[in-house]
Amino acid sequence: MKIYLYDTTLRDGAQAEGINYTVSDKLKIAKKLISFGIDYLEGGWPGANPKDLEFFQEAKKLDFANTKLCAFGSTRHPKLLVKDDPNLFNLIKSEAPVVTIFGKTWDLHVEIALETTLENNLLMVYETVAFLKEAGREVVFDAEHFFDGYKNNPEYALKVIEKAFAAGADFIVLCDTNGGSLPDQIRAGVIEALKIHPQIGIHAHNDAELAVANSLEAIKAGAVMVQGTVNGYGERCGNANLCSIIPNLSLKMGVELNCRQNLPYLTRLSRYVAEIANLHPNPYQPYTGQSAFTHKGGVHASALLKDKGTYEHISPELVGNHRKVSISDQAGVSNLLYNSESLGLSAEEVKVFGRELVAAVKEMEHQGYQFEGAEASLELLARKVTGKLLEPFKIANSKLIIEIKEDGRVLSEAVVKVRVGDTTIHTASDGNGPVNALDNALRKALLEIYPDLSQLKLTDYKVRVLNEKAGTEAVVRVLIESSAGEKNINTVGVSTNIIEASLKALTDSLIYFLINKEGTVS
Amino acid sequence: MKIYLYDTTLRDGAQAEGINYTVSDKLKIAKKLISFGIDYLEGGWPGANPKDLEFFQEAKKLDFANTKLCAFGSTRHPKLLVKDDPNLFNLIKSEAPVVTIFGKTWDLHVEIALETTLENNLLMVYETVAFLKEAGREVVFDAEHFFDGYKNNPEYALKVIEKAFAAGADFIVLCDTNGGSLPDQIRAGVIEALKIHPQIGIHAHNDAELAVANSLEAIKAGAVMVQGTVNGYGERCGNANLCSIIPNLSLKMGVELNCRQNLPYLTRLSRYVAEIANLHPNPYQPYTGQSAFTHKGGVHASALLKDKGTYEHISPELVGNHRKVSISDQAGVSNLLYNSESLGLSAEEVKVFGRELVAAVKEMEHQGYQFEGAEASLELLARKVTGKLLEPFKIANSKLIIEIKEDGRVLSEAVVKVRVGDTTIHTASDGNGPVNALDNALRKALLEIYPDLSQLKLTDYKVRVLNEKAGTEAVVRVLIESSAGEKNINTVGVSTNIIEASLKALTDSLIYFLINKEGTVS
Repeated sequence: MKIYLYDTTLRDGAQAEGINYTVSDKLKIAKKLISFGIDYLEGGWPGANPKDLEFFQEAKKLDFANTKLCAFGSTRHPKLLVKDDPNLFNLIKSEAPVVTIFGKTWDLHVEIALETTLENNLLMVYETVAFLKEAGREVVFDAEHFFDGYKNNPEYALKVIEKAFAAGADFIVLCDTNGGSLPDQIRAGVIEALKIHPQIGIHAHNDAELAVANSLEAIKAGAVMVQGTVNGYGERCGNANLCSIIPNLSLKMGVELNCRQNLPYLTRLSRYVAEIANLHPNPYQPYTGQSAFTHKGGVHASALLKDKGTYEHISPELVGNHRKVSISDQAGVSNLLYNSESLGLSAEEVKVFGRELVAAVKEMEHQGYQFEGAEASLELLARKVTGKLLEPFKIANSKLIIEIKEDGRVLSEAVVKVRVGDTTIHTASDGNGPVNALDNALRKALLEIYPDLSQLKLTDYKVRVLNEKAGTEAVVRVLIESSAGEKNINTVGVSTNIIEASLKALTDSLIYFLINKEGTVS
Repeated sequence: MKIYLYDTTLRDGAQAEGINYTVSDKLKIAKKLISFGIDYLEGGWPGANPKDLEFFQEAKKLDFANTKLCAFGSTRHPKLLVKDDPNLFNLIKSEAPVVTIFGKTWDLHVEIALETTLENNLLMVYETVAFLKEAGREVVFDAEHFFDGYKNNPEYALKVIEKAFAAGADFIVLCDTNGGSLPDQIRAGVIEALKIHPQIGIHAHNDAELAVANSLEAIKAGAVMVQGTVNGYGERCGNANLCSIIPNLSLKMGVELNCRQNLPYLTRLSRYVAEIANLHPNPYQPYTGQSAFTHKGGVHASALLKDKGTYEHISPELVGNHRKVSISDQAGVSNLLYNSESLGLSAEEVKVFGRELVAAVKEMEHQGYQFEGAEASLELLARKVTGKLLEPFKIANSKLIIEIKEDGRVLSEAVVKVRVGDTTIHTASDGNGPVNALDNALRKALLEIYPDLSQLKLTDYKVRVLNEKAGTEAVVRVLIESSAGEKNINTVGVSTNIIEASLKALTDSLIYFLINKEGTVS
């Protein structure tokens, strides 16, 4: 069985709150989808906005390889002839070889939203599809609200798709526009529609968290096309997530897909689209998320060491993702063993110091530390426990003065006294906020001796108040990310004093950088 | 049909990468779940870590109403007798009325992970369940990897649950531990298991984005218990999301749930747990996400004006969420009108100052302010714009000195100069951390003039770094909650300087208290 993938990331996906693509963004995503091997690529609604019109102009320059570009639009206006409808004119003008037309199948919508008669809507569907077929286009008919329509007035809903079929539509796609249908309703609808047209598709939304399941159910019932978006982006709760549908079909259901050989690029595709959309990738996203193959429980880690299949439904490499075993207070020595290499520990050291290190981690996590996302601090702790920690510097004393003046000006000044070997450096700096002042002063002191430190930039700073109900006496956890070119350094500090917590995390990042920088610390 | 909800947010949910609950976090979430009306609440694995042991100690003080507390653990050690197994000892010691035991049903796991014989595993299951039943506990048997086991060696998988049944297990929960099963496999497994035990449950993971669908499928096949977590948090891609399962069962499938009448608190529950977990709530989350009922497309917005049902699968109020139409600035003024009473504004004032106040709110939100959860600061802003703001005091100058000494001692000292009318008070205090020192100094200064202030206690303090990528120069938002008896005062402050942001929020809370306290400020 062969299934066609129809991507609407650039049209329905762009309806997600928080997404706003430029034309250049859309072109970039289009290129990635083409190279991934998507069968149908919906570019937008030319005429609905100038941006989409421009996209179709620019898209003419792309090499579409085996992908077909689709332009999206609605059936003709209730009161216009097809030849006079500017919407249809723009669809033809887009020069897209495929045109996708959505039409009403729910009687409520015809009468209330379109404010026309049920009879006229049937004419609109027929004439619009016939007009586009005459213009030589492949036509996909999106039966909007099909499942709600079928529930409310099955006879009418089916009559609409009969009209689309009679006019020559190549595919009829049943849309669960409001996203609230259950798999059984989807199955029943697909079976009925297949009696009318052999090429049925499914367009599901995720409002009941069933979009992927509903898409699979439709295919099991005989549908041959599935519409969705990368990462499931889309209006409200999103569209059906192609990043889950593709591996489910291909790896679990034995369905043939044209993009089959590109499955190992799926994770890259997912992260790329998130990046262009400027959204944080969902770490827990199935298959492609950063945590999708992360194991935290000690029981799981120990089993994975013996057989990877014990706690993985597929091998992460199949979709271009990778396995991670995290260290936390849930963990045992097994997690440590799994990570020993990245912690710089030999098998021998794990044997000798393993339990002590796990105990130290548990104790510190009890105080509020968190080493997930602070791998550099964990490595320093491992070095400390095994007696291998070098100290490139020592902070003898630090002082911060913050003054909020009557005119609203705020001054932050840090004074630090740092020892490197026999040398003592005593210096000061101001900054934009107390932590910034401290960071500046510390770097100023250390740069004299370690000029390489100028490569290290602070890139991320997070604060979490742990026992919030303790009010201003609460324990504070600070997570810092620094970057020195390609490698990120993640560190953590905890204290009731936010300044001290920040200083700890800052100090860890500097030490980690210095001891890992070849030739910097002997 | 009645279905039991079994929540494992505090155990399996805590396995999510990035989640690290304190005991106090777990107690807070437990309270919320109890008041929501969850049937079974899994508190943790006493003995796996000291935190969970402490949780069960503290949980004894809670009023569980109609919720049953469950302690989680594994079958006895392959080489120990039940009476000598410290794991089982801790389960009894937890005093939880329900014990949930997971046991292996997949032959591969028995031999490779447990390194024992298939025969011994059957004994381990039987003896463990029997031991707990003799101790008077209700026992839930979690059949780990049931669906993988059933696929690989159906005879053995069923034999395991027969043993659990024979030993008296009250429920047998079929776990899709690796999260890769399809709905058809779930259905087949449930039907088989029901031939053995009348009370079957389902525990699904979301690795194929099917956890909700699989849970519903199990219930359709006859399961009576569903395990899941709030927001679907959990190891790897997460557990089945109760925030979707509950409304699907209740609103779409006509299933009876004990928490039925609390459905309008579902969105609050979802956001609360995200807050405690310190995770950004997923805006696209079905039912409870901020965008779940947001309409962006022009076609949708105009249809919604005619009939809400046109683009909504349920009414958002049913789950405590609300509709949003992302369009104009008009929304601002109507929001304001809606809230005018709580802001202390007359209809006349809204008319005169409405636009100015909306503009001020937008400008401040652009800077990073957030008035949801900081209603007192919003009221002060409204008073300021309408010229009604009294100033019970003025901070002329404040200074903070923080010193981190070589021996590790940390000193925080605050100096404040405050004016009340013609009086100037210049005083100082130390504290546990800089914000605490500032709070102490400010109160010390003001208590001389406003002795009522001693009633006001700081009860919550939160920090969020907004533009995290700006490193230590990032903008920081501080939210403070104070309490003076029955009423909470929520305020906000924003600055690149955490001390200044805290001072703003502190000052707002003191002013709000004083101007609302009858007879305090004239």
